[in-house]
Amino acid sequence: MIAAEKLQALVAGIFAAAGLPEADAHTVAASLVQANLRGTDTHGVSRTAQYVEMIERGEINPKPQLSLRLDLPALAVLDADRAAGAVAMTRAADLAAQKARTAGAATVLVRRTTHTGAIGAYARRIAEQGMAGIVLSASAPLMVYHGALKAGVATNPIAIAVPGGARGPVVFDMASSVIPLGRIFQARKSGEPLPPDAAVDKSGQITTDANAAAWPLPLGGAKGSGLSLMIECVTSLALGSPILAEYLEATEASRMHFQNAYLMAMDLAKLGDPATYAQELARLEADLKALPADPALGGILLPGDRGDRMHARRHAEGIPVPEAVLADLRKLAAKLGLEAGI
Amino acid sequence: MIAAEKLQALVAGIFAAAGLPEADAHTVAASLVQANLRGTDTHGVSRTAQYVEMIERGEINPKPQLSLRLDLPALAVLDADRAAGAVAMTRAADLAAQKARTAGAATVLVRRTTHTGAIGAYARRIAEQGMAGIVLSASAPLMVYHGALKAGVATNPIAIAVPGGARGPVVFDMASSVIPLGRIFQARKSGEPLPPDAAVDKSGQITTDANAAAWPLPLGGAKGSGLSLMIECVTSLALGSPILAEYLEATEASRMHFQNAYLMAMDLAKLGDPATYAQELARLEADLKALPADPALGGILLPGDRGDRMHARRHAEGIPVPEAVLADLRKLAAKLGLEAGI
Repeated sequence: MIAAEKLQALVAGIFAAAGLPEADAHTVAASLVQANLRGTDTHGVSRTAQYVEMIERGEINPKPQLSLRLDLPALAVLDADRAAGAVAMTRAADLAAQKARTAGAATVLVRRTTHTGAIGAYARRIAEQGMAGIVLSASAPLMVYHGALKAGVATNPIAIAVPGGARGPVVFDMASSVIPLGRIFQARKSGEPLPPDAAVDKSGQITTDANAAAWPLPLGGAKGSGLSLMIECVTSLALGSPILAEYLEATEASRMHFQNAYLMAMDLAKLGDPATYAQELARLEADLKALPADPALGGILLPGDRGDRMHARRHAEGIPVPEAVLADLRKLAAKLGLEAGI
Repeated sequence: MIAAEKLQALVAGIFAAAGLPEADAHTVAASLVQANLRGTDTHGVSRTAQYVEMIERGEINPKPQLSLRLDLPALAVLDADRAAGAVAMTRAADLAAQKARTAGAATVLVRRTTHTGAIGAYARRIAEQGMAGIVLSASAPLMVYHGALKAGVATNPIAIAVPGGARGPVVFDMASSVIPLGRIFQARKSGEPLPPDAAVDKSGQITTDANAAAWPLPLGGAKGSGLSLMIECVTSLALGSPILAEYLEATEASRMHFQNAYLMAMDLAKLGDPATYAQELARLEADLKALPADPALGGILLPGDRGDRMHARRHAEGIPVPEAVLADLRKLAAKLGLEAGI
């Protein structure tokens, strides 16, 4: 178990040594540690080495010039200049909320950022400002397109958050795939079989063998791959920054990872009293939790309940970091001339 | 087979005789016939009798006073005064597009409309104005909430549309359930079994027997029910017009059907050249369709492709209306003193 503060300080130190300004290094480190605190370890500090490699390869620009390409009352385009995902997405979330404060609702599109991580965090950031937030992000093909035998779309997620929950915002964050790609990697390490109907091998045949599995299947077949495709359409195509086509055609542009995103903020205070909103949310939660529970499932939960509980526990007890990840962090620290201290 | 124009004239006549102004009667009839043309028969003219009953019960207000409760540059609340869904949603889609033309993007919330039908139609209407459209709608509990043995949320759908496709807008429209409730009713008539893991009986046990089935299961378990819940949060709770809690508590308010909705329009012309957008969409479509196809599935399609093909066929050949629906329409026509003509 490692205390969140200690882990965050180390990871921020690594990113700073790798070239990020202090504030950005802190933002990226905090986003990874927050994912660990909430139990989303696939998007946690295990990504540190990968991000440093992306900086070294020029995929993540450590000193990006973030700029507004378009700045209308309720629509802006933030050109991320290959910024680390958390840096660009945090800026975009705050900008969407700021614009919504005046216009009522506002959308910010993010062009050419990099790995956005667990996007629920940015919907949460909007909700923490008293707004409803909807966030979509678009990435490269790694999920089967329904009807095809190969990857054609990404596991593009949708996150929706609202304020007023008992423990802060209620945050929903769903990939458009049955399982995340990271689950396949985890199962390779653990040796456990994959769930049925969740992934296919290179020839497009369904498999539960993580070593044979190549791509996750879309959630609900045409539903998941259609949702993912539409996310590409409202982000990448709208921005003149296509991802899928570049990868499917293996063009020069596809040799460097990038992502695009959509963030929408709607100012709930314009619509009613925040206290009433919180009361109604509590009322609905109570009504749902009063339904008869299925003993085979893990209770009746709101989106994010499990993560909130994990956050409370890991904040108190520390984060269990696998030995392999610790070894990576120590190696990185040594290479960059830092004291790991873990 | 009945020609779409003939069917639409009859249904519009029925709604006009039932009290709707001519223009509104036409709007509602057109929305039903459009659903039939696209093959979404569960949301087609089979609903006519139900809508007339809703008018008679006072659930649908035939002469609503649609009014703007809030009118900010990029956020408006349209109070629908129990208007027929198609009347309020059409107005809201046009308002969202109009506001987006100035603000870049805009959101319209619709308060207390009635059965919104196939919401892809309103996303399509936004896309037909050169914009990306996202539409959500919220209804009463009729889908299992993950973890519970009973219905706790609706099958709340999400629709996303963009312009520039080869045959008009590309329109995605997905319920948050594995199967629509209407599929259960259809299966009761046809005697076919339901798909596995799609519905439960009154005691919450999974069943493929349509006669025993009470509620559909959420798509992907917690994903589908979480998405549905968040749609209630960004529409009904934001509007101070809760649906789920009223029904779960069986309050007075739940005795009259109503729905709420969210429509977002983003003006793509502010972001780039529409011709380039259409080219990139065609490029992506070609790339996806060039993937190796799974012979077990029905080809590699874009969202709405199947509906587009059906629309072309039924527009040319007519709409196959089941005898029971024809009988309903003839009975309604006779009751309202109209010549059915079918």
